[in-house]
Amino acid sequence: MASGDSLLDYMATQTINLGTIIHNYTICRQLAGGTECAGLVKADAYGMGIKHVAPALFHEANCRIFFVANFAEALKLRQILPEAVIYVLNGIFSSHVDFFISHNLRPVLNDLAQVILWQRISPENRPACAIHFDTGINRLGLSPKETAQFINDINLRKGLDISLIMSHLACSDDPEDPMNARQLADFKTITRSFPDIPASLANSGGILLGPDYHFDLVRPGLLMFGGNPSKGAMPKNIKIPFKILGKILQIRTIGAGQSVGYGATWTAKQPRHIATINIGYADGYSQMFNNCGWAYIKGVKVPVVGRVSMDMIAVDVTDVNPQEIGPECDVELLGPHITLEMAAEVSTLSQYEILTGVRERYQRIYIKNS
Amino acid sequence: MASGDSLLDYMATQTINLGTIIHNYTICRQLAGGTECAGLVKADAYGMGIKHVAPALFHEANCRIFFVANFAEALKLRQILPEAVIYVLNGIFSSHVDFFISHNLRPVLNDLAQVILWQRISPENRPACAIHFDTGINRLGLSPKETAQFINDINLRKGLDISLIMSHLACSDDPEDPMNARQLADFKTITRSFPDIPASLANSGGILLGPDYHFDLVRPGLLMFGGNPSKGAMPKNIKIPFKILGKILQIRTIGAGQSVGYGATWTAKQPRHIATINIGYADGYSQMFNNCGWAYIKGVKVPVVGRVSMDMIAVDVTDVNPQEIGPECDVELLGPHITLEMAAEVSTLSQYEILTGVRERYQRIYIKNS
Repeated sequence: MASGDSLLDYMATQTINLGTIIHNYTICRQLAGGTECAGLVKADAYGMGIKHVAPALFHEANCRIFFVANFAEALKLRQILPEAVIYVLNGIFSSHVDFFISHNLRPVLNDLAQVILWQRISPENRPACAIHFDTGINRLGLSPKETAQFINDINLRKGLDISLIMSHLACSDDPEDPMNARQLADFKTITRSFPDIPASLANSGGILLGPDYHFDLVRPGLLMFGGNPSKGAMPKNIKIPFKILGKILQIRTIGAGQSVGYGATWTAKQPRHIATINIGYADGYSQMFNNCGWAYIKGVKVPVVGRVSMDMIAVDVTDVNPQEIGPECDVELLGPHITLEMAAEVSTLSQYEILTGVRERYQRIYIKNS
Repeated sequence: MASGDSLLDYMATQTINLGTIIHNYTICRQLAGGTECAGLVKADAYGMGIKHVAPALFHEANCRIFFVANFAEALKLRQILPEAVIYVLNGIFSSHVDFFISHNLRPVLNDLAQVILWQRISPENRPACAIHFDTGINRLGLSPKETAQFINDINLRKGLDISLIMSHLACSDDPEDPMNARQLADFKTITRSFPDIPASLANSGGILLGPDYHFDLVRPGLLMFGGNPSKGAMPKNIKIPFKILGKILQIRTIGAGQSVGYGATWTAKQPRHIATINIGYADGYSQMFNNCGWAYIKGVKVPVVGRVSMDMIAVDVTDVNPQEIGPECDVELLGPHITLEMAAEVSTLSQYEILTGVRERYQRIYIKNS
């Protein structure tokens, strides 16, 4: 055994460096000029494991404000971090009200009905709330009409403890998109009606759009986890905090004219050495990598050949020194050498989907050196 | 609350009907003319939950032989079913040998090195094994050269308790593909050297290729779970055993010229009602459904508009009676009305990937009526 740690080291592994996530979080805060920085830990911390990532951010990076998508994630996070501020982005259903109160969860109120629902609760134990104003993504948040009502009708916010006003950018990945400036202008106008309440607009992409977008709180997700949220260059100093390693199951030599995988979609033009790796789409390595993905083995970048199977892929290892490889040998599918940006480019999937697509079948290994 | 069962019913849910899986398993056995039928439960039983599916197959459908992909899945299944026959498709690493023995797991031996490794173990407690002969998919299994060696050199199988010989079809989804007949002929030739050992060739697609392909054991996966493994028509009587339901978070009315979602990739040509649903790609609903997926709500099929977000999608509900819908309303994303075949066609993803892509963020609900 290589590490001697565990039999399961001989499975495919997902190694997550919590020190690097903390480092990236710190870089995000620097990029935002020291603006307060929330931790986005929805979707199991973007597939990195909320149970490990959230405490690392809280205890080692002084992150105090967290965002999750839904109620179940919030309950989980509350068990992990009794003291954290937790916002629930998806808002609140009437049936969940008591549990928001008893677990001290802050709803992001997304329409006037939710505002009124929250307002009617006795204020004694009621947590603070965020108000989400939609400025154009048309997904969640008060519509422009509701926004005007909310601003003009003082009764609608009477008694509410609003700890945050926020909006969300639709096109922050593209600094050139005129929608960014439109959303910024609309949000700025809204903030003037709430001069004493902290405001937040920027996700990872928004952080990179510059100081105008930072307001009082930024909400990095992808950038913490080593993805590039922008069409522009990756910010300096952001590091890749994870590595997906498969193992070679078998190596075979095939002749010219022989095909590999389901549907026989790839045929060797000359004799090739083909390694079968123990990672497939059931691990989150999508069939969008059929015949176009890359792996990294013993210093050589090697192509995925044929279709991705449920539990396996095949890679052409002809260019690797055959003396150096064999069954049980490590193969990087995602990490420092095969970055999210590279994987997204060849697969046409987004970095976000590739990252959150990583499945629980991996043996997760946490390390802490930064 | 609708069911009164659980607060988490108000999350997105994955309802799995174990009775229907058993029904489909029985249909598979009928389609295979009564041939013995294994249960393929790799990848967490194709995303349906091995902890529930495997015992249902064992105790209620008399399924005795199970296949998993890897060692970790096998250990899990052994805890669930102490009596089952468990084959591990990925083969065996030398570091795992002791655990195969102590947990009574049968390796599928995929090359001569694995054969020799297994042969060297003292036969007293050594479980039986399967030998996998590759007949053209070039993924796992003895190569033609190794196959000839194994057949001709009696020493290679001396003392081995071989309980199964097998191969795997590359193109069984297409009954017209000439590769099927080639693989069948090659496998038949191999079986003649092992007249007393049960043989297996057919996955779900192979079952539908007809009696020649059935041999002594068939290995259905997708068909048990309601997918169609063939380009031909779906076999009669196969039913859909699962349903993915999201909830409406919010409904908004947008005007002509307004866009929805990240990148503003969808723009309304006229006023529309847009519902935001609490399912996104972090739940396994891929961005391959951007602007082309479908959902089913109150009897109406409605289109996904804009990009799929991490935790949400937007659907155009203008054609649904507005009196009938609102927040917390159920929306089918996959199930009886939005079948795997339909979802695969619009997304270009395979039914297999869509099925195994379903993520753990859903509240899983098991029911048993068939």
